[in-house]
Amino acid sequence: MDTAPPLSPTARSTVRRGAKRARTDRAELYATLDAGLVGHLGVVLDGAPLVLPTGYGRQGDTLYLHGSTGAASLRAASAGVPVCFTVTLVDGVVYARSAFHHSMNYRCAVVHGVARRVTGPDELLHGLEALTEHLAPGSWDATRRPDRRELAATALLALDLTEASLKVRTGPPGDDEQDLATPVWAGVLPLRTVVGEPEPCPLLPAGTPVPARVLDREI
Amino acid sequence: MDTAPPLSPTARSTVRRGAKRARTDRAELYATLDAGLVGHLGVVLDGAPLVLPTGYGRQGDTLYLHGSTGAASLRAASAGVPVCFTVTLVDGVVYARSAFHHSMNYRCAVVHGVARRVTGPDELLHGLEALTEHLAPGSWDATRRPDRRELAATALLALDLTEASLKVRTGPPGDDEQDLATPVWAGVLPLRTVVGEPEPCPLLPAGTPVPARVLDREI
Repeated sequence: MDTAPPLSPTARSTVRRGAKRARTDRAELYATLDAGLVGHLGVVLDGAPLVLPTGYGRQGDTLYLHGSTGAASLRAASAGVPVCFTVTLVDGVVYARSAFHHSMNYRCAVVHGVARRVTGPDELLHGLEALTEHLAPGSWDATRRPDRRELAATALLALDLTEASLKVRTGPPGDDEQDLATPVWAGVLPLRTVVGEPEPCPLLPAGTPVPARVLDREI
Repeated sequence: MDTAPPLSPTARSTVRRGAKRARTDRAELYATLDAGLVGHLGVVLDGAPLVLPTGYGRQGDTLYLHGSTGAASLRAASAGVPVCFTVTLVDGVVYARSAFHHSMNYRCAVVHGVARRVTGPDELLHGLEALTEHLAPGSWDATRRPDRRELAATALLALDLTEASLKVRTGPPGDDEQDLATPVWAGVLPLRTVVGEPEPCPLLPAGTPVPARVLDREI
């Protein structure tokens, strides 16, 4: 990671509120993006914002997003207009001694840019592999790859990570001095995502073993 | 819930992609919003979308969002412009027999509207109570309430749930007929959020008991 440039803030990617929570280490940005499953893509449609969730995958400094070629948000994002893509991981609820200082611990990556529609067949497959492997590690090699018809129905966008910010909150509440003597519990209730028992597709032949890529998966 | 009007789609709140996943029961919208902790607020700032995470609370058909009075996104959203607020819960990773049909199970609520800045002292407190109780049930009565200075530093927005949509995916993968004979495991890996051990604030007197509102909390 030592050759990766730091996160170089532009006017809009500068963390203004709670600037002490801004991180400038590109490796931390990667780690946050790699740990999330879903991001929220914002586009401007008819003058109004539209925010929709979407899966993604990362290859170096390129994020790949995809969706149906018919999705209005994807079409809007393909038209060379500015987009914003945000990935937020909630790590805990912060209980304070005052209502005001209640908060959350979180990691939040915000990427600004103009998305590029991927049309070259090699990059298309490469991007879909990144997306599939991000959602379901090991699935790209284990399952049938996209055929021509499926590729034609998929809009793949590439978004550069050049203009990105990362904001992180960790640790206990930031109560006011005056409240510290209050006999009220304060601290953090950590949150995490866990996987449950795999639920086989009803159409699967009985006894089909659950592969390690599913069984041993950690989120 | 029988008096609540169904979700009545406008042009932009009509679910177009995967329309079979659209839900029109307002009670389901409420349940999804109530189950989430963080939403993503989209605004248009200098012609570009900005998407930032924020906590929220619901009172009937009103969503309350808040932030610092200094936050650019909150200021933009207060100016009578259109906003979009999206809450997404990821319920599982859908493993298919083809890369193309990999998916996620999720619930996604999207609210369109013009946010209203709350300034009346009664509604301000009422909205902050909804926000605090959503983030940390029981905390409003157990901790110090906001004082005048804190209220002045808080921007509270109200967003009406009139124009909203809910999209839900559940169940196994939707593989193509041709792939069903493939000897590849397919199914759903359920995901859920769990709480860990409460982490007391280091400034808390030793032995301060963890209250039931924290200890017994389920997410």
